[in-house]
Amino acid sequence: MQTLVAIGGGIKWKNPVILQEFIQRAGGAKAHIVILPQASREEDTGKFYQNEFKKLGVKNPIALEFTQRINAEHASHIKAIRNATGIFFGGGTQMRIAALLGGTKLEDEILQAYHRGAVVSGTSAGTAILSTLMLAYGKPGATPREGMAQFSPGLGFTTKIIFDQHFRERDRFGRLAYAVSMHPGMLGVGVDENTAAIVTNDSLITVAGSGAVTIVDGKELVDTDTPEITSGSKPVSISGLKVHILTHGCSFDIKKRKATLVKKFSSDD
Amino acid sequence: MQTLVAIGGGIKWKNPVILQEFIQRAGGAKAHIVILPQASREEDTGKFYQNEFKKLGVKNPIALEFTQRINAEHASHIKAIRNATGIFFGGGTQMRIAALLGGTKLEDEILQAYHRGAVVSGTSAGTAILSTLMLAYGKPGATPREGMAQFSPGLGFTTKIIFDQHFRERDRFGRLAYAVSMHPGMLGVGVDENTAAIVTNDSLITVAGSGAVTIVDGKELVDTDTPEITSGSKPVSISGLKVHILTHGCSFDIKKRKATLVKKFSSDD
Repeated sequence: MQTLVAIGGGIKWKNPVILQEFIQRAGGAKAHIVILPQASREEDTGKFYQNEFKKLGVKNPIALEFTQRINAEHASHIKAIRNATGIFFGGGTQMRIAALLGGTKLEDEILQAYHRGAVVSGTSAGTAILSTLMLAYGKPGATPREGMAQFSPGLGFTTKIIFDQHFRERDRFGRLAYAVSMHPGMLGVGVDENTAAIVTNDSLITVAGSGAVTIVDGKELVDTDTPEITSGSKPVSISGLKVHILTHGCSFDIKKRKATLVKKFSSDD
Repeated sequence: MQTLVAIGGGIKWKNPVILQEFIQRAGGAKAHIVILPQASREEDTGKFYQNEFKKLGVKNPIALEFTQRINAEHASHIKAIRNATGIFFGGGTQMRIAALLGGTKLEDEILQAYHRGAVVSGTSAGTAILSTLMLAYGKPGATPREGMAQFSPGLGFTTKIIFDQHFRERDRFGRLAYAVSMHPGMLGVGVDENTAAIVTNDSLITVAGSGAVTIVDGKELVDTDTPEITSGSKPVSISGLKVHILTHGCSFDIKKRKATLVKKFSSDD
């Protein structure tokens, strides 16, 4: 089974249930976790994640520490990926990951690990990088506008999804809707902080965590003027976008384009 | 065999050798050519290409005429694609094609036709659309700068290549180098006017026509600050890009990243 655990950033370190979910899926106490901290420029990011994973019961989590392309393909890095049952991309700037890993043997190995069943997870920038086409940077706002989203190539664990992260916290509905209107076959998946969109076999999305995952589906899009507006940050018009807001336990079938809710009920007074 | 004939625009209609190349590869006199004119907003674009293909000996070229997503999946369109040995995307604005076809059954059928061996060609916008990640619009210039390229999702006949077109004529080296620096595993292929990059089995590029195809290869890229520059149209630095300029008959092996030149000699006086 192929599994992505795409976390929207803002992990609550005091009780990181979504990281536990990742560890569980990667083998629990037997998990071999490899951390890629390259999105961050802080020197201790790898160590930080290592410590957090240790606190959660992972034995010997490995952080691949390199900041130059020439060091990406080191034999010890390749070996660590080949042994991994879980691979975790930390937060920071997603383009750093693509520029450092893109086209290297390490990238190949990570993709192969995913296809043989290693669980791949990321938070924030580490979530953006999971798709073939990623949102590199942009502007906030609820209304889709020209120029609010800059795309770039990600690592390509899924070709069907465009992820966005810190979704509600940074007001990113507009840029995700803009992205989907450009090619309505893509599925926009906006992940809130401390929340994960768990994608299995590139076909089912399940939500875990304290926030929501917003699905922006363009499959039934009727019309848009996005292609006509190529300057001036003007708002674009779009008709027929379908949107689902999914919370913990809810799911979305990518092939059938069907959401299944798990309703929560407040306890009566 | 899978074949893409990616034309850089500016076809010389008096003697369109690169279109003849496409027709030949699609079956010559027996070719069933289907035209998609959706990138253009001119009403007679489909008819124009039909006439040109007829002049070149194609019997009954079919133009799929529709301007709304709801009409993309018409049974006659699906049937035409299923019978096609050659599919041709006309010029205009590439985002129109993605917004109209993306996520429709027609897009699926065209991708299937490509995989069973129908030759897929495009000119200008019709070339941009061929890759998973496309250059949607941007600014000219030889120096790569932040914000000079806007990417969006294409139709995805190849995940490895980013095409650019009118390459020399519109001074687009900078934006293609910028694109490749974002993910050095991508191969930049800049096609001049009246020139074609012919891609077979996603592994070999052969050049035909009167201009050049510029290959921008990031595989051996050493370092770049592209990820750090996200505003202000500032120039970016990149070390280790490899560039090949290929003319008629030259080729490039995508796996081996190796160019083979066919040298031309001016006749002696």
